[in-house]
Amino acid sequence: MTFETRSEQACYGGRLGYYTHASTSTGTDMRFAVYQPPQAAQHKVPALYYLAGLTCTEETFVIKAGAQRLAAELGLMLVACDTSPRGLNLPGDADAWDFGVGAGFYLDATAEPWSRNYRMSSYINHELPALIEKHFPARDDRRGIFGHSMGGHGALVAALSRPAFWHSVSAFAPISNPVAVPWGEKAFGHYLGADRQAWQRWDASLLMRAQAHPGLILVDQGLADNFLDSQLHPQALEDAAAASGQKLRLRRQPGYDHSYWFIQTFIDDHLRHHAQTLLG
Amino acid sequence: MTFETRSEQACYGGRLGYYTHASTSTGTDMRFAVYQPPQAAQHKVPALYYLAGLTCTEETFVIKAGAQRLAAELGLMLVACDTSPRGLNLPGDADAWDFGVGAGFYLDATAEPWSRNYRMSSYINHELPALIEKHFPARDDRRGIFGHSMGGHGALVAALSRPAFWHSVSAFAPISNPVAVPWGEKAFGHYLGADRQAWQRWDASLLMRAQAHPGLILVDQGLADNFLDSQLHPQALEDAAAASGQKLRLRRQPGYDHSYWFIQTFIDDHLRHHAQTLLG
Repeated sequence: MTFETRSEQACYGGRLGYYTHASTSTGTDMRFAVYQPPQAAQHKVPALYYLAGLTCTEETFVIKAGAQRLAAELGLMLVACDTSPRGLNLPGDADAWDFGVGAGFYLDATAEPWSRNYRMSSYINHELPALIEKHFPARDDRRGIFGHSMGGHGALVAALSRPAFWHSVSAFAPISNPVAVPWGEKAFGHYLGADRQAWQRWDASLLMRAQAHPGLILVDQGLADNFLDSQLHPQALEDAAAASGQKLRLRRQPGYDHSYWFIQTFIDDHLRHHAQTLLG
Repeated sequence: MTFETRSEQACYGGRLGYYTHASTSTGTDMRFAVYQPPQAAQHKVPALYYLAGLTCTEETFVIKAGAQRLAAELGLMLVACDTSPRGLNLPGDADAWDFGVGAGFYLDATAEPWSRNYRMSSYINHELPALIEKHFPARDDRRGIFGHSMGGHGALVAALSRPAFWHSVSAFAPISNPVAVPWGEKAFGHYLGADRQAWQRWDASLLMRAQAHPGLILVDQGLADNFLDSQLHPQALEDAAAASGQKLRLRRQPGYDHSYWFIQTFIDDHLRHHAQTLLG
Protein backbone atom coordinates (compact mmCIF):
# COMPACT_ATOMS: atom_id res chain seq x y z
CA MET A 1 0.00 0.00 0.00
CA THR A 2 1.96 3.00 -1.24
CA PHE A 3 1.13 6.42 -2.51
CA GLU A 4 2.48 9.08 -4.79
CA THR A 5 3.22 12.57 -3.47
CA ARG A 6 1.86 15.06 -5.98
CA SER A 7 3.03 18.11 -4.02
CA GLU A 8 4.05 19.19 -0.54
CA GLN A 9 4.23 22.84 0.51
CA ALA A 10 5.01 24.72 3.69
CA CYS A 11 1.96 26.10 5.48
CA TYR A 12 1.75 27.56 9.01
CA GLY A 13 5.01 25.89 9.99
CA GLY A 14 3.73 22.49 8.85
CA ARG A 15 3.18 20.84 5.49
CA LEU A 16 0.22 20.71 3.11
CA GLY A 17 0.41 17.81 0.68
CA TYR A 18 -1.62 16.28 -2.12
CA TYR A 19 -1.30 12.54 -2.71
CA THR A 20 -2.63 9.77 -4.97
CA HIS A 21 -2.81 6.04 -4.31
CA ALA A 22 -4.33 2.93 -5.86
CA SER A 23 -7.32 2.13 -3.67
CA THR A 24 -8.33 -1.47 -3.10
CA SER A 25 -11.72 -0.30 -1.83
CA THR A 26 -12.73 1.49 -5.00
CA GLY A 27 -10.49 -0.19 -7.57
CA THR A 28 -9.40 3.26 -8.74
CA ASP A 29 -6.73 5.79 -8.00
CA MET A 30 -7.90 7.97 -5.13
CA ARG A 31 -6.61 11.40 -4.21
CA PHE A 32 -6.31 12.88 -0.76
CA ALA A 33 -4.84 15.89 1.02
CA VAL A 34 -3.00 15.90 4.34
CA TYR A 35 -2.04 18.85 6.49
CA GLN A 36 0.72 17.94 8.92
CA PRO A 37 0.99 20.50 11.73
CA PRO A 38 4.43 21.54 12.99
CA GLN A 39 4.11 19.20 16.00
CA ALA A 40 4.05 16.19 13.64
CA ALA A 41 7.74 16.73 12.97
CA GLN A 42 8.37 15.82 16.63
CA HIS A 43 5.77 13.19 17.53
CA LYS A 44 2.60 11.50 16.32
CA VAL A 45 -0.51 13.65 16.42
CA PRO A 46 -4.21 12.81 16.19
CA ALA A 47 -5.72 13.00 12.72
CA LEU A 48 -9.04 14.68 11.97
CA TYR A 49 -10.72 13.44 8.78
CA TYR A 50 -12.93 15.74 6.73
CA LEU A 51 -15.60 14.49 4.31
CA ALA A 52 -16.70 17.02 1.70
CA GLY A 53 -20.07 17.55 0.10
CA LEU A 54 -21.51 16.97 -3.36
CA THR A 55 -19.25 17.98 -6.30
CA CYS A 56 -16.20 18.61 -4.09
CA THR A 57 -12.74 17.07 -4.26
CA GLU A 58 -9.88 16.48 -1.83
CA GLU A 59 -8.81 20.09 -2.48
CA THR A 60 -11.98 21.87 -1.43
CA PHE A 61 -11.60 21.75 2.32
CA VAL A 62 -7.93 22.65 2.55
CA ILE A 63 -8.37 25.58 0.18
CA LYS A 64 -11.69 26.97 1.40
CA ALA A 65 -12.24 26.13 5.07
CA GLY A 66 -9.38 28.04 6.67
CA ALA A 67 -8.61 25.14 9.01
CA GLN A 68 -4.84 24.98 8.82
CA ARG A 69 -4.18 28.00 11.06
CA LEU A 70 -5.74 26.53 14.19
CA ALA A 71 -4.79 22.94 13.32
CA ALA A 72 -1.16 24.13 13.37
CA GLU A 73 -1.68 25.77 16.75
CA LEU A 74 -3.49 22.80 18.31
CA GLY A 75 -1.38 20.07 16.73
CA LEU A 76 -4.05 18.28 14.70
CA MET A 77 -3.39 16.53 11.40
CA LEU A 78 -6.07 17.18 8.78
CA VAL A 79 -6.97 14.55 6.18
CA ALA A 80 -9.35 15.29 3.30
CA CYS A 81 -10.37 12.70 0.71
CA ASP A 82 -12.27 12.81 -2.55
CA THR A 83 -16.06 12.42 -2.70
CA SER A 84 -16.23 9.36 -4.97
CA PRO A 85 -14.16 7.17 -7.26
CA ARG A 86 -13.42 8.86 -10.59
CA GLY A 87 -12.58 7.80 -14.12
CA LEU A 88 -14.81 4.72 -14.23
CA ASN A 89 -17.34 5.98 -16.77
CA LEU A 90 -20.09 3.77 -15.37
CA PRO A 91 -23.46 4.28 -17.07
CA GLY A 92 -25.10 7.37 -15.61
CA ASP A 93 -22.25 8.27 -13.25
CA ALA A 94 -21.82 11.76 -14.72
CA ASP A 95 -25.40 12.68 -15.58
CA ALA A 96 -26.14 14.63 -12.39
CA TRP A 97 -24.20 16.55 -9.76
CA ASP A 98 -25.99 14.79 -6.90
CA PHE A 99 -25.26 11.20 -7.89
CA GLY A 100 -22.26 9.21 -9.15
CA VAL A 101 -19.00 11.08 -9.68
CA GLY A 102 -18.48 13.56 -6.83
CA ALA A 103 -21.43 12.05 -4.95
CA GLY A 104 -20.37 8.77 -3.37
CA PHE A 105 -22.33 9.39 -0.16
CA TYR A 106 -19.64 7.58 1.90
CA LEU A 107 -21.48 4.25 1.79
CA ASP A 108 -20.70 0.81 0.34
CA ALA A 109 -22.96 0.27 -2.64
CA THR A 110 -24.67 -3.10 -3.00
CA ALA A 111 -26.61 -2.60 -6.24
CA GLU A 112 -25.19 -2.82 -9.76
CA PRO A 113 -23.24 -1.35 -11.44
CA TRP A 114 -22.01 0.45 -8.32
CA SER A 115 -21.14 -2.31 -5.84
CA ARG A 116 -17.62 -2.96 -7.08
CA ASN A 117 -16.28 0.59 -6.92
CA TYR A 118 -18.58 2.84 -4.92
CA ARG A 119 -17.26 1.62 -1.59
CA MET A 120 -16.48 4.94 0.07
CA SER A 121 -17.45 3.65 3.53
CA SER A 122 -14.76 0.98 3.40
CA TYR A 123 -12.42 3.59 2.05
CA ILE A 124 -12.88 6.19 4.77
CA ASN A 125 -13.38 3.78 7.67
CA HIS A 126 -10.60 1.31 6.91
CA GLU A 127 -8.31 1.80 3.96
CA LEU A 128 -7.55 5.51 4.28
CA PRO A 129 -6.90 5.56 8.05
CA ALA A 130 -4.62 2.51 7.70
CA LEU A 131 -2.72 4.28 4.93
CA ILE A 132 -2.45 7.50 6.91
CA GLU A 133 -1.32 5.77 10.09
CA LYS A 134 1.28 3.75 8.22
CA HIS A 135 2.84 6.59 6.21
CA PHE A 136 2.22 9.76 8.25
CA PRO A 137 2.91 10.56 11.92
CA ALA A 138 -0.73 9.99 12.91
CA ARG A 139 -1.75 8.43 16.20
CA ASP A 140 -3.71 5.18 15.90
CA ASP A 141 -5.50 5.57 19.23
CA ARG A 142 -7.32 8.84 18.56
CA ARG A 143 -9.22 9.85 15.42
CA GLY A 144 -11.83 12.48 14.67
CA ILE A 145 -14.18 12.84 11.73
CA PHE A 146 -16.31 15.69 10.42
CA GLY A 147 -17.82 16.88 7.21
CA HIS A 148 -20.23 19.08 5.31
CA SER A 149 -23.63 18.27 3.84
CA MET A 150 -23.20 14.83 2.18
CA GLY A 151 -19.93 14.68 4.14
CA GLY A 152 -21.70 15.60 7.38
CA HIS A 153 -23.95 12.63 6.76
CA GLY A 154 -20.87 10.50 6.08
CA ALA A 155 -19.10 11.63 9.24
CA LEU A 156 -22.11 11.06 11.49
CA VAL A 157 -22.78 7.63 10.00
CA ALA A 158 -19.12 6.63 10.33
CA ALA A 159 -18.88 7.73 13.96
CA LEU A 160 -22.23 6.30 15.02
CA SER A 161 -21.37 2.98 13.33
CA ARG A 162 -17.84 2.76 14.75
CA PRO A 163 -17.83 4.72 18.02
CA ALA A 164 -14.67 3.02 19.28
CA PHE A 165 -12.80 3.95 16.11
CA TRP A 166 -13.97 7.57 15.68
CA HIS A 167 -13.47 9.28 19.00
CA SER A 168 -14.86 12.68 18.07
CA VAL A 169 -17.40 13.82 15.49
CA SER A 170 -19.02 16.99 14.23
CA ALA A 171 -20.84 18.21 11.13
CA PHE A 172 -21.67 21.31 9.10
CA ALA A 173 -25.18 21.30 7.64
CA PRO A 174 -25.35 17.49 7.39
CA ILE A 175 -27.94 15.54 5.42
CA SER A 176 -29.33 14.37 8.73
CA ASN A 177 -32.02 11.96 7.64
CA PRO A 178 -31.20 10.90 4.06
CA VAL A 179 -33.85 8.18 3.80
CA ALA A 180 -36.49 10.92 3.99
CA VAL A 181 -35.14 13.52 1.52
CA PRO A 182 -34.65 13.65 -2.28
CA TRP A 183 -30.83 13.57 -2.29
CA GLY A 184 -30.80 10.49 -0.07
CA GLU A 185 -33.67 8.71 -1.79
CA LYS A 186 -32.02 9.12 -5.17
CA ALA A 187 -28.56 8.05 -4.06
CA PHE A 188 -29.62 5.22 -1.79
CA GLY A 189 -32.10 3.93 -4.38
CA HIS A 190 -29.33 3.63 -6.94
CA TYR A 191 -26.47 2.53 -4.68
CA LEU A 192 -28.43 0.22 -2.39
CA GLY A 193 -31.48 -0.79 -4.39
CA ALA A 194 -35.20 -0.44 -3.81
CA ASP A 195 -35.40 -2.16 -0.42
CA ARG A 196 -35.62 0.73 2.01
CA GLN A 197 -34.81 -1.54 4.94
CA ALA A 198 -31.26 -1.74 3.60
CA TRP A 199 -30.98 2.03 3.65
CA GLN A 200 -31.37 2.39 7.40
CA ARG A 201 -27.80 1.58 8.41
CA TRP A 202 -26.67 4.59 6.35
CA ASP A 203 -28.99 7.14 7.99
CA ALA A 204 -27.48 9.21 10.83
CA SER A 205 -30.78 9.94 12.57
CA LEU A 206 -31.86 6.29 12.54
CA LEU A 207 -28.44 5.18 13.80
CA MET A 208 -28.40 7.82 16.52
CA ARG A 209 -31.90 6.87 17.64
CA ALA A 210 -30.74 3.25 18.08
CA GLN A 211 -27.39 3.92 19.77
CA ALA A 212 -25.72 7.10 21.02
CA HIS A 213 -22.08 7.90 20.32
CA PRO A 214 -20.19 8.32 23.62
CA GLY A 215 -18.95 11.79 22.67
CA LEU A 216 -20.73 15.10 22.40
CA ILE A 217 -21.70 15.73 18.77
CA LEU A 218 -21.42 19.30 17.47
CA VAL A 219 -23.56 20.32 14.49
CA ASP A 220 -23.76 23.79 12.94
CA GLN A 221 -26.61 24.62 10.58
CA GLY A 222 -27.13 27.93 8.79
CA LEU A 223 -30.67 29.24 8.76
CA ALA A 224 -30.25 30.89 5.33
CA ASP A 225 -29.22 27.53 3.85
CA ASN A 226 -31.18 26.91 0.63
CA PHE A 227 -31.18 23.17 1.29
CA LEU A 228 -32.31 23.31 4.91
CA ASP A 229 -35.98 22.48 4.48
CA SER A 230 -35.73 20.19 1.49
CA GLN A 231 -32.62 18.10 2.18
CA LEU A 232 -31.00 18.58 5.59
CA HIS A 233 -33.63 18.11 8.37
CA PRO A 234 -31.52 18.73 11.47
CA GLN A 235 -34.64 18.34 13.61
CA ALA A 236 -34.40 14.61 12.92
CA LEU A 237 -31.06 14.56 14.76
CA GLU A 238 -32.56 16.39 17.73
CA ASP A 239 -35.43 13.93 17.89
CA ALA A 240 -33.03 10.99 17.66
CA ALA A 241 -30.75 12.46 20.32
CA ALA A 242 -33.70 12.90 22.65
CA ALA A 243 -34.68 9.26 22.10
CA SER A 244 -31.26 7.72 22.72
CA GLY A 245 -29.74 10.24 25.11
CA GLN A 246 -27.11 11.33 22.58
CA LYS A 247 -25.25 14.42 23.72
CA LEU A 248 -25.86 16.79 20.81
CA ARG A 249 -25.07 20.48 20.44
CA LEU A 250 -27.04 21.60 17.38
CA ARG A 251 -26.47 25.31 16.70
CA ARG A 252 -28.74 27.14 14.29
CA GLN A 253 -26.82 30.09 12.83
CA PRO A 254 -29.00 32.95 11.54
CA GLY A 255 -27.99 34.40 8.17
CA TYR A 256 -25.56 31.65 7.13
CA ASP A 257 -25.99 29.61 3.97
CA HIS A 258 -24.58 26.28 2.72
CA SER A 259 -21.21 27.63 1.56
CA TYR A 260 -17.63 27.50 2.77
CA TRP A 261 -18.07 31.09 3.99
CA PHE A 262 -20.34 29.46 6.58
CA ILE A 263 -17.88 26.65 7.24
CA GLN A 264 -14.88 28.95 7.69
CA THR A 265 -16.84 31.10 10.11
CA PHE A 266 -17.29 28.19 12.52
CA ILE A 267 -14.29 26.00 11.65
CA ASP A 268 -12.35 27.02 14.74
CA ASP A 269 -15.18 25.91 17.02
CA HIS A 270 -15.15 22.51 15.34
CA LEU A 271 -11.39 22.09 15.59
CA ARG A 272 -11.52 22.97 19.28
CA HIS A 273 -14.40 20.54 19.75
CA HIS A 274 -12.31 17.73 18.28
CA ALA A 275 -9.15 18.78 20.10
CA GLN A 276 -10.93 18.51 23.42
CA THR A 277 -11.42 14.78 22.84
CA LEU A 278 -8.41 13.99 20.69
CA LEU A 279 -5.87 15.93 22.74
CA GLY A 280 -7.67 16.13 26.10
CA MET B 1 -21.22 54.97 -11.23
CA THR B 2 -23.20 51.95 -10.12
CA PHE B 3 -22.54 48.28 -9.73
CA GLU B 4 -24.32 44.96 -9.83
CA THR B 5 -24.27 42.67 -6.81
CA ARG B 6 -23.58 39.15 -8.03
CA SER B 7 -23.79 37.59 -4.57
CA GLU B 8 -23.53 38.43 -0.89
CA GLN B 9 -23.05 35.81 1.80
CA ALA B 10 -22.60 35.83 5.56
CA CYS B 11 -19.02 35.26 6.72
CA TYR B 12 -17.57 35.73 10.22
CA GLY B 13 -20.48 37.93 11.23
CA GLY B 14 -19.94 40.19 8.22
CA ARG B 15 -20.65 39.91 4.53
CA LEU B 16 -18.63 38.60 1.58
CA GLY B 17 -19.85 39.91 -1.76
CA TYR B 18 -18.96 39.69 -5.44
CA TYR B 19 -19.80 42.67 -7.64
CA THR B 20 -19.50 43.83 -11.25
CA HIS B 21 -19.44 47.36 -12.63
CA ALA B 22 -18.79 49.15 -15.91
CA SER B 23 -15.33 50.65 -15.49
CA THR B 24 -14.53 53.98 -17.13
CA SER B 25 -10.80 53.30 -16.62
CA THR B 26 -10.71 50.08 -18.61
CA GLY B 27 -13.79 50.46 -20.79
CA THR B 28 -14.90 47.00 -19.71
CA ASP B 29 -16.96 45.41 -16.99
CA MET B 30 -14.75 44.84 -13.97
CA ARG B 31 -15.37 42.44 -11.13
CA PHE B 32 -14.40 42.90 -7.51
CA ALA B 33 -14.95 41.30 -4.11
CA VAL B 34 -15.61 43.09 -0.84
CA TYR B 35 -15.58 41.68 2.67
CA GLN B 36 -17.48 43.91 5.06
CA PRO B 37 -16.60 43.10 8.68
CA PRO B 38 -19.34 43.12 11.32
CA GLN B 39 -18.28 46.60 12.50
CA ALA B 40 -19.25 48.03 9.09
CA ALA B 41 -22.89 47.57 9.99
CA GLN B 42 -22.41 50.22 12.70
CA HIS B 43 -19.89 52.71 11.31
CA LYS B 44 -17.44 53.29 8.49
CA VAL B 45 -14.28 51.22 8.62
CA PRO B 46 -10.93 51.50 6.83
CA ALA B 47 -10.61 49.48 3.63
CA LEU B 48 -7.58 47.38 2.78
CA TYR B 49 -7.12 46.73 -0.95
CA TYR B 50 -5.51 43.54 -2.19
CA LEU B 51 -3.87 43.19 -5.60
CA ALA B 52 -3.47 39.62 -6.81
CA GLY B 53 -0.75 38.07 -8.92
CA LEU B 54 -0.55 36.73 -12.47
CA THR B 55 -3.53 34.62 -13.62
CA CYS B 56 -5.64 35.42 -10.55
CA THR B 57 -9.09 36.97 -10.34
CA GLU B 58 -11.06 38.93 -7.76
CA GLU B 59 -11.97 35.59 -6.14
CA THR B 60 -8.48 34.29 -5.44
CA PHE B 61 -7.64 36.28 -2.34
CA VAL B 62 -10.95 35.94 -0.52
CA ILE B 63 -11.04 32.19 -1.15
CA LYS B 64 -7.41 31.29 -0.54
CA ALA B 65 -5.76 33.77 1.84
CA GLY B 66 -7.80 33.17 5.00
CA ALA B 67 -8.02 36.90 5.71
CA GLN B 68 -11.65 37.28 6.69
CA ARG B 69 -11.29 35.83 10.20
CA LEU B 70 -8.94 38.50 11.49
CA ALA B 71 -10.44 41.27 9.32
CA ALA B 72 -13.72 40.59 11.11
CA GLU B 73 -12.02 40.78 14.48
CA LEU B 74 -10.07 43.96 13.70
CA GLY B 75 -12.80 45.73 11.74
CA LEU B 76 -11.09 46.05 8.38
CA MET B 77 -12.92 46.01 5.05
CA LEU B 78 -11.18 43.91 2.40
CA VAL B 79 -11.40 44.82 -1.29
CA ALA B 80 -10.02 42.54 -4.03
CA CYS B 81 -10.12 43.41 -7.72
CA ASP B 82 -9.37 41.55 -10.89
CA THR B 83 -5.88 41.47 -12.42
CA SER B 84 -6.72 42.99 -15.84
CA PRO B 85 -9.59 43.94 -18.11
CA ARG B 86 -11.20 40.90 -19.72
CA GLY B 87 -13.21 40.15 -22.83
CA LEU B 88 -11.42 42.56 -25.14
CA ASN B 89 -9.76 40.01 -27.41
CA LEU B 90 -6.91 42.36 -28.22
CA PRO B 91 -4.23 40.80 -30.43
CA GLY B 92 -1.93 38.67 -28.25
CA ASP B 93 -3.80 39.31 -25.00
CA ALA B 94 -4.36 35.62 -24.33
CA ASP B 95 -1.19 34.07 -25.70
CA ALA B 96 0.71 33.91 -22.41
CA TRP B 97 -0.11 33.69 -18.71
CA ASP B 98 2.34 36.48 -17.84
CA PHE B 99 1.02 39.16 -20.18
CA GLY B 100 -2.38 40.51 -21.22
CA VAL B 101 -5.48 38.93 -19.67
CA GLY B 102 -4.82 38.23 -16.00
CA ALA B 103 -1.58 40.21 -16.15
CA GLY B 104 -2.34 43.94 -16.17
CA PHE B 105 0.60 44.81 -13.91
CA TYR B 106 -1.43 47.62 -12.26
CA LEU B 107 -0.04 50.29 -14.58
CA ASP B 108 -1.56 52.60 -17.19
CA ALA B 109 -0.43 51.42 -20.61
CA THR B 110 0.77 54.01 -23.10
CA ALA B 111 1.61 51.79 -26.08
CA GLU B 112 -0.88 50.38 -28.59
CA PRO B 113 -3.11 48.44 -28.61
CA TRP B 114 -3.12 48.55 -24.78
CA SER B 115 -3.39 52.23 -23.88
CA ARG B 116 -7.16 52.49 -24.07
CA ASN B 117 -8.06 49.61 -21.75
CA TYR B 118 -5.05 48.44 -19.76
CA ARG B 119 -5.34 51.26 -17.25
CA MET B 120 -5.25 49.30 -14.02
CA SER B 121 -3.34 52.02 -12.16
CA SER B 122 -6.14 54.51 -12.72
CA TYR B 123 -8.56 51.80 -11.78
CA ILE B 124 -7.01 50.83 -8.45
CA ASN B 125 -5.82 54.31 -7.46
CA HIS B 126 -8.91 56.32 -8.39
CA GLU B 127 -11.97 54.64 -9.79
CA LEU B 128 -12.25 51.66 -7.47
CA PRO B 129 -11.64 53.53 -4.18
CA ALA B 130 -14.19 56.17 -5.24
CA LEU B 131 -16.72 53.46 -6.01
CA ILE B 132 -16.04 51.67 -2.73
CA GLU B 133 -16.24 54.84 -0.65
CA LYS B 134 -19.49 55.86 -2.30
CA HIS B 135 -21.33 52.57 -2.05
CA PHE B 136 -19.82 50.78 0.96
CA PRO B 137 -19.22 51.96 4.54
CA ALA B 138 -15.52 52.62 3.91
CA ARG B 139 -13.65 55.53 5.47
CA ASP B 140 -12.17 58.01 3.00
CA ASP B 141 -9.38 59.16 5.30
CA ARG B 142 -7.60 55.83 5.79
CA ARG B 143 -6.73 53.24 3.14
CA GLY B 144 -4.29 50.38 2.98
CA ILE B 145 -2.98 48.40 0.04
CA PHE B 146 -1.14 45.12 -0.29
CA GLY B 147 -0.66 42.36 -2.80
CA HIS B 148 1.21 39.31 -4.02
CA SER B 149 3.89 38.98 -6.70
CA MET B 150 2.64 41.18 -9.59
CA GLY B 151 0.16 42.55 -7.03
CA GLY B 152 2.94 43.19 -4.53
CA HIS B 153 4.63 45.26 -7.22
CA GLY B 154 1.32 47.04 -7.83
CA ALA B 155 0.76 47.79 -4.15
CA LEU B 156 4.27 49.12 -3.59
CA VAL B 157 4.13 51.30 -6.70
CA ALA B 158 0.70 52.65 -5.74
CA ALA B 159 1.73 53.51 -2.19
CA LEU B 160 5.09 54.99 -3.13
CA SER B 161 3.45 57.09 -5.84
CA ARG B 162 0.58 58.29 -3.68
CA PRO B 163 1.79 58.22 -0.05
CA ALA B 164 -0.94 60.57 1.14
CA PHE B 165 -3.64 58.37 -0.36
CA TRP B 166 -2.36 54.95 0.68
CA HIS B 167 -1.60 55.14 4.39
CA SER B 168 -0.31 51.60 4.87
CA VAL B 169 1.34 49.12 2.53
CA SER B 170 2.74 45.61 2.55
CA ALA B 171 3.56 42.88 0.06
CA PHE B 172 3.99 39.13 -0.31
CA ALA B 173 6.82 38.11 -2.64
CA PRO B 174 6.57 41.24 -4.76
CA ILE B 175 8.20 41.75 -8.15
CA SER B 176 10.47 44.26 -6.50
CA ASN B 177 12.46 45.58 -9.44
CA PRO B 178 10.43 44.80 -12.59
CA VAL B 179 12.62 46.80 -14.99
CA ALA B 180 15.39 44.29 -14.33
CA VAL B 181 13.56 40.93 -14.62
CA PRO B 182 11.90 39.00 -17.47
CA TRP B 183 8.28 39.40 -16.27
CA GLY B 184 8.69 43.14 -16.01
CA GLU B 185 10.69 43.58 -19.19
CA LYS B 186 8.08 41.71 -21.20
CA ALA B 187 5.08 43.49 -19.70
CA PHE B 188 6.58 46.98 -19.62
CA GLY B 189 7.95 46.59 -23.13
CA HIS B 190 4.49 45.83 -24.46
CA TYR B 191 2.43 48.15 -22.26
CA LEU B 192 4.82 51.11 -22.18
CA GLY B 193 6.96 50.72 -25.27
CA ALA B 194 10.68 50.37 -25.83
CA ASP B 195 11.81 53.51 -24.00
CA ARG B 196 13.06 52.20 -20.67
CA GLN B 197 13.04 55.67 -19.16
CA ALA B 198 9.26 55.51 -19.21
CA TRP B 199 9.32 52.28 -17.21
CA GLN B 200 10.92 53.80 -14.14
CA ARG B 201 7.83 55.32 -12.57
CA TRP B 202 6.34 51.78 -12.39
CA ASP B 203 9.27 50.20 -10.55
CA ALA B 204 8.97 49.93 -6.76
CA SER B 205 12.69 49.87 -6.05
CA LEU B 206 13.37 52.91 -8.21
CA LEU B 207 10.46 54.79 -6.65
CA MET B 208 11.54 53.86 -3.14
CA ARG B 209 15.08 54.92 -3.82
CA ALA B 210 13.83 58.38 -4.87
CA GLN B 211 11.28 58.93 -2.11
CA ALA B 212 10.40 56.95 1.01
CA HIS B 213 6.81 56.22 2.00
CA PRO B 214 6.14 57.66 5.48
CA GLY B 215 4.95 54.30 6.82
CA LEU B 216 6.83 51.14 7.66
CA ILE B 217 6.62 48.72 4.73
CA LEU B 218 6.26 45.02 5.53
CA VAL B 219 7.40 42.47 2.94
CA ASP B 220 7.40 38.68 3.33
CA GLN B 221 9.40 36.54 0.93
CA GLY B 222 9.60 32.74 0.96
CA LEU B 223 13.05 31.30 0.43
CA ALA B 224 11.70 28.22 -1.40
CA ASP B 225 9.95 30.48 -3.92
CA ASN B 226 10.71 29.26 -7.45
CA PHE B 227 10.60 32.82 -8.75
CA LEU B 228 12.84 34.39 -6.12
CA ASP B 229 16.09 34.56 -8.06
CA SER B 230 14.69 35.11 -11.54
CA GLN B 231 11.80 37.53 -11.01
CA LEU B 232 11.43 38.93 -7.50
CA HIS B 233 14.76 40.46 -6.33
CA PRO B 234 13.83 41.65 -2.83
CA GLN B 235 17.41 42.77 -2.29
CA ALA B 236 16.64 45.69 -4.62
CA LEU B 237 14.08 46.91 -2.08
CA GLU B 238 16.60 46.67 0.74
CA ASP B 239 19.13 48.63 -1.26
CA ALA B 240 16.54 51.27 -2.13
CA ALA B 241 15.37 51.52 1.48
CA ALA B 242 18.95 52.04 2.63
CA ALA B 243 19.38 54.81 0.08
CA SER B 244 16.20 56.75 0.91
CA GLY B 245 15.75 55.89 4.57
CA GLN B 246 12.57 53.94 3.89
CA LYS B 247 11.44 51.99 6.95
CA LEU B 248 11.30 48.44 5.58
CA ARG B 249 10.76 45.14 7.34
CA LEU B 250 11.71 42.46 4.81
CA ARG B 251 11.30 38.99 6.27
CA ARG B 252 12.82 36.01 4.49
CA GLN B 253 10.81 32.92 5.37
CA PRO B 254 12.70 29.62 5.04
CA GLY B 255 10.79 26.79 3.37
CA TYR B 256 7.93 28.85 1.94
CA ASP B 257 7.12 29.02 -1.75
CA HIS B 258 5.12 31.40 -3.96
CA SER B 259 1.68 29.96 -3.16
CA TYR B 260 -1.31 30.99 -1.10
CA TRP B 261 -0.19 28.45 1.53
CA PHE B 262 2.65 30.93 2.11
CA ILE B 263 0.29 33.91 2.04
CA GLN B 264 -2.20 32.40 4.48
CA THR B 265 0.62 31.56 6.89
CA PHE B 266 1.56 35.23 7.25
CA ILE B 267 -1.73 36.96 6.43
CA ASP B 268 -2.49 37.77 10.06
CA ASP B 269 0.81 39.62 10.44
CA HIS B 270 -0.05 41.73 7.40
CA LEU B 271 -3.55 42.55 8.62
CA ARG B 272 -2.16 43.61 12.00
CA HIS B 273 0.49 45.69 10.25
CA HIS B 274 -2.20 47.58 8.34
CA ALA B 275 -4.51 47.83 11.34
CA GLN B 276 -1.78 49.56 13.33
CA THR B 277 -1.82 52.45 10.87
CA LEU B 278 -5.43 52.34 9.69
CA LEU B 279 -7.00 51.89 13.13
CA GLY B 280 -4.22 53.22 15.37
